[in-house]
Amino acid sequence: MFKIPEHQVAGHKASQGLLGPLIDDSGHFYKPLQSDDRGSKEVAFYNQLSSNTEIPNHIRKFFPLYYGTQHIEASDGSGPCPHLVLEDIVSSRANPSVMDVKIGSRTWYPTASEDYIMRCLKKDRETTSLPLGFRISGFQIYGSEESGYWKPEKKYVLGFTAEDVRVALRKFASSNSSDGLGSEPDCAFAETVYGGSNGILAQLLKLKAWFEDQTIFHFYSCSVLMMYEKEPVLKSESPCAVVKLVDFAHVVEGQGVIDHNFLGGLCSLIKFISEILNNLPHNSAEVL
Amino acid sequence: MFKIPEHQVAGHKASQGLLGPLIDDSGHFYKPLQSDDRGSKEVAFYNQLSSNTEIPNHIRKFFPLYYGTQHIEASDGSGPCPHLVLEDIVSSRANPSVMDVKIGSRTWYPTASEDYIMRCLKKDRETTSLPLGFRISGFQIYGSEESGYWKPEKKYVLGFTAEDVRVALRKFASSNSSDGLGSEPDCAFAETVYGGSNGILAQLLKLKAWFEDQTIFHFYSCSVLMMYEKEPVLKSESPCAVVKLVDFAHVVEGQGVIDHNFLGGLCSLIKFISEILNNLPHNSAEVL
Repeated sequence: MFKIPEHQVAGHKASQGLLGPLIDDSGHFYKPLQSDDRGSKEVAFYNQLSSNTEIPNHIRKFFPLYYGTQHIEASDGSGPCPHLVLEDIVSSRANPSVMDVKIGSRTWYPTASEDYIMRCLKKDRETTSLPLGFRISGFQIYGSEESGYWKPEKKYVLGFTAEDVRVALRKFASSNSSDGLGSEPDCAFAETVYGGSNGILAQLLKLKAWFEDQTIFHFYSCSVLMMYEKEPVLKSESPCAVVKLVDFAHVVEGQGVIDHNFLGGLCSLIKFISEILNNLPHNSAEVL
Repeated sequence: MFKIPEHQVAGHKASQGLLGPLIDDSGHFYKPLQSDDRGSKEVAFYNQLSSNTEIPNHIRKFFPLYYGTQHIEASDGSGPCPHLVLEDIVSSRANPSVMDVKIGSRTWYPTASEDYIMRCLKKDRETTSLPLGFRISGFQIYGSEESGYWKPEKKYVLGFTAEDVRVALRKFASSNSSDGLGSEPDCAFAETVYGGSNGILAQLLKLKAWFEDQTIFHFYSCSVLMMYEKEPVLKSESPCAVVKLVDFAHVVEGQGVIDHNFLGGLCSLIKFISEILNNLPHNSAEVL
């Protein structure tokens, strides 16, 4: 009944002896509650999100649906343990291209332990989080039946420079992604995936407007997940691309202050994507 | 010919035996070049700013005019030394109310020395920089001929909590400022100073729009200076309030990335000021 999700690009992965998320055939995503307070914090966040009436519906759409918690057999074989039951936002898609972008130049919150802060700070400085305000945590880009996915190792992705990030974001919306960072991205799908009134940029701008105003939550170490399927893109079906927020184990109360750390990083990602759209080759239509 | 500026609210202050800025009667502000690389970095910034043609005029207005460098007798009596010659943006005003707000949750830049980073990080965590994305570095608020200015000590201001910052920003535009943080601010001048098409909020929003786009500079440890004079405010003369950017000793190249750290903090300050305007007492006109 429960399976290991195929298209996970970041985070803990389930396997024999390893604890990770599971999915079922009904579109549910089961995320094991981590044994420290991260699990309970994520449950608390989803409960608060469900009951908070100040969050407008057009923003609620950015969060996976939440169905409570449930005890199921853990993926590591350690017996039944509590899992968050969420909407499976990826597995139902055919050949999804997915990118997980962790937002914020700072992944730690002010009241965290000194040890945790120093470990996060080190990672933020070693990755692009500090200079760019975000880092790519992982991705998979579908090429074709023949080439399959380009899905590099986590370690490789975390070693990305600012320039690598720029290229990867262009590759994400290109038809020649399977040959890695080496070749020039053709940005064949950029107009459809990133652009337009329902594209990723438009969705990120809606999120931005909310973050300029909301003082309910501060989202540390939270990711923007960008997804699209190639088939609908080629047919220009709408909606082609989807943006979701995921990973809320480090959400803290906003206490009347905006989440300037998330907002700054989000604006930086928006600028990167805007530049891709502003610099499309004139013949991008021909490439398609 | 050279005098110690009267209305300086933050930064190094000149006095017998101490190096600090000087002013003359012609509206010039002489800032001594600090002997480490901070002085030369600030000169480099002003030179780059002067020659950069990408900066629109409505943004250029936020920077003090720059007249090059000049050797003058230092305020500490150590003999002639090089000074930046800038527009004196405060001294020409009658009874100016001034607030210096250091923008950014992070005052250090990625390539700084480990020692410098750790000192800045400590200060950012001890002040409101980390939680709010900005900290008040100093201010003076003019009350009346009788009460004069409320100009608390630097140490007191740096100890502000988030709530203190909220009250201080309201006091800054109040007619009952001279009794400190204790009494409820009447926000008598908020509509005129913060609001309106030429007010501080409108100016900050112009700056924000530029920061969402510009990738030329990253401004670490830079301040937004907010100023107004009470007389024009009472007469509702325009422009009542002025916003300037100051302190560029830690500006680094943007390298094609937006200054998400400054932008995030600026958006937070904007939210604080918006809330003051949204929560004005209905009888604020009567108070005036």
